[in-house]
Amino acid sequence: MTEQPFTLVERHACCGGEIRCLSHQSHELGLPARFNLFLPKKALAGEAVPAVYVLAGLTCNQDTFLIKSNAIRYAAEYGLALVAPDTSPRGADVAGEDEAYDLGTGAGYYVDATSDPWAAHYRMGSYVRHELPAFVEKHFPIKVGRRGIMGHSMGGMGALSVALGDAEAWTTVSAFAPIAAPSRVDWGQKATATYFGGYEAEWGQYDPCLLLQSGRTHPGMFLVDQGLDDEFLTRLRPDWLEQAARDAGQSLTLRRHEGYDHSYWFVQSFIQDHLKHHAEGLL
Amino acid sequence: MTEQPFTLVERHACCGGEIRCLSHQSHELGLPARFNLFLPKKALAGEAVPAVYVLAGLTCNQDTFLIKSNAIRYAAEYGLALVAPDTSPRGADVAGEDEAYDLGTGAGYYVDATSDPWAAHYRMGSYVRHELPAFVEKHFPIKVGRRGIMGHSMGGMGALSVALGDAEAWTTVSAFAPIAAPSRVDWGQKATATYFGGYEAEWGQYDPCLLLQSGRTHPGMFLVDQGLDDEFLTRLRPDWLEQAARDAGQSLTLRRHEGYDHSYWFVQSFIQDHLKHHAEGLL
Repeated sequence: MTEQPFTLVERHACCGGEIRCLSHQSHELGLPARFNLFLPKKALAGEAVPAVYVLAGLTCNQDTFLIKSNAIRYAAEYGLALVAPDTSPRGADVAGEDEAYDLGTGAGYYVDATSDPWAAHYRMGSYVRHELPAFVEKHFPIKVGRRGIMGHSMGGMGALSVALGDAEAWTTVSAFAPIAAPSRVDWGQKATATYFGGYEAEWGQYDPCLLLQSGRTHPGMFLVDQGLDDEFLTRLRPDWLEQAARDAGQSLTLRRHEGYDHSYWFVQSFIQDHLKHHAEGLL
Repeated sequence: MTEQPFTLVERHACCGGEIRCLSHQSHELGLPARFNLFLPKKALAGEAVPAVYVLAGLTCNQDTFLIKSNAIRYAAEYGLALVAPDTSPRGADVAGEDEAYDLGTGAGYYVDATSDPWAAHYRMGSYVRHELPAFVEKHFPIKVGRRGIMGHSMGGMGALSVALGDAEAWTTVSAFAPIAAPSRVDWGQKATATYFGGYEAEWGQYDPCLLLQSGRTHPGMFLVDQGLDDEFLTRLRPDWLEQAARDAGQSLTLRRHEGYDHSYWFVQSFIQDHLKHHAEGLL
């Protein structure tokens, strides 16, 4: 008798498809991990569909993006699945992991920590790049290797870095208000000191601007939206992203929106364009 | 020097309009009250627009419906304002008000309590029917007396009862999974025992089925959606609503949806039809 590879925590009909809240034992994280999966109608009927991975920002979990972005209605319309992982391991039991909003729980930065005591469980990098897609494509009606990725803030950074890290594995890419150069702003520097034991060079695998500067590009166009009233603009640095993309020859559509801030009220305002972008590339 | 009649707690650009989180001193509740207001683009430009009042269910607050329903994008598209009140007074300091999910805080039932100690502050009935619309129409670019109302669960009950209570004041009406006959199910009976001191007749002003049975009707069509996998179906009783509407000659479109439950995943699946219904009646 084989063990069930996941637990179905909740399921809800939504927009003709179904949202499933799932839990599985992650070998990368060494802990149980939760993620949400939206399957559009045709996937419920057994037809494999492409999936778009959605990465949330600091303080969020696997529910946030799907609840607040309005993404599901357009995924349903286009016939795309959505996969929403958590933003960090939960229950790693590292001293201090719950003390700050921008480090530890809810702040995994989609990197693999290399410094103890973080290194044992803080491996959201490998989880999102490898384990989760392989798991989802094995157990659900999801097309193998036909993937889009998008995210918000820390998750926008994650989306860009995952796609630049392995351009062949990810077909379509977009981001809302991404942290474009984490190694050069205080959020990322705090993570350098802890997750990487001060060894800045680790960011070479994860920092979108550093990846572009090292010559990595993605064949697709990056769609990036940024609010001009974003309270974190000086830590997001869309200008640096624009410059690095230009220098590297990376196709980028960076749209700046007057009056919009960093919240999901901003994300939901432009989400339809992102799902359309992914649908055009994936279908 | 006149006192500012409200405090702007937050504001966020959204879908071409703006969501404002407001606080004011409610004379009906005798306490500060928060509500959210979405103004579409043309209202920001100074043109008065009709408003749809959205009432949330048990355990919710003024944020829930707007965050989870996807209503804003359609209100923006049609040029409607949305007004989202809280579901109870906050800080009334009644003994036991925070002990149960279905009584007290988060469970005002859009009624005026008549029994001490609830009667002093638990007056969401008069707040939603009179004070809030008058306040909103006085201070914001909202058309006077051009109102729609909708809600979910306890808020669906509220929407139907508010509209039946004063049909001339509310032009368009809809509900998701409303509690159709609160006086005859345990949720409402618990409120009878406390808010009304056991005096059941008070429900005559608030129970949608009792209102219809007493001969009250609304000239508009009631649009009501109900999931057939709703875990509370036996306490919502759409069948009783259907019968009471038929007997009273109330126009009702009751849509039953296979597979959908009580959650906002259900609400967001059909929200576009509701905003369209309100837009057709109000514009």
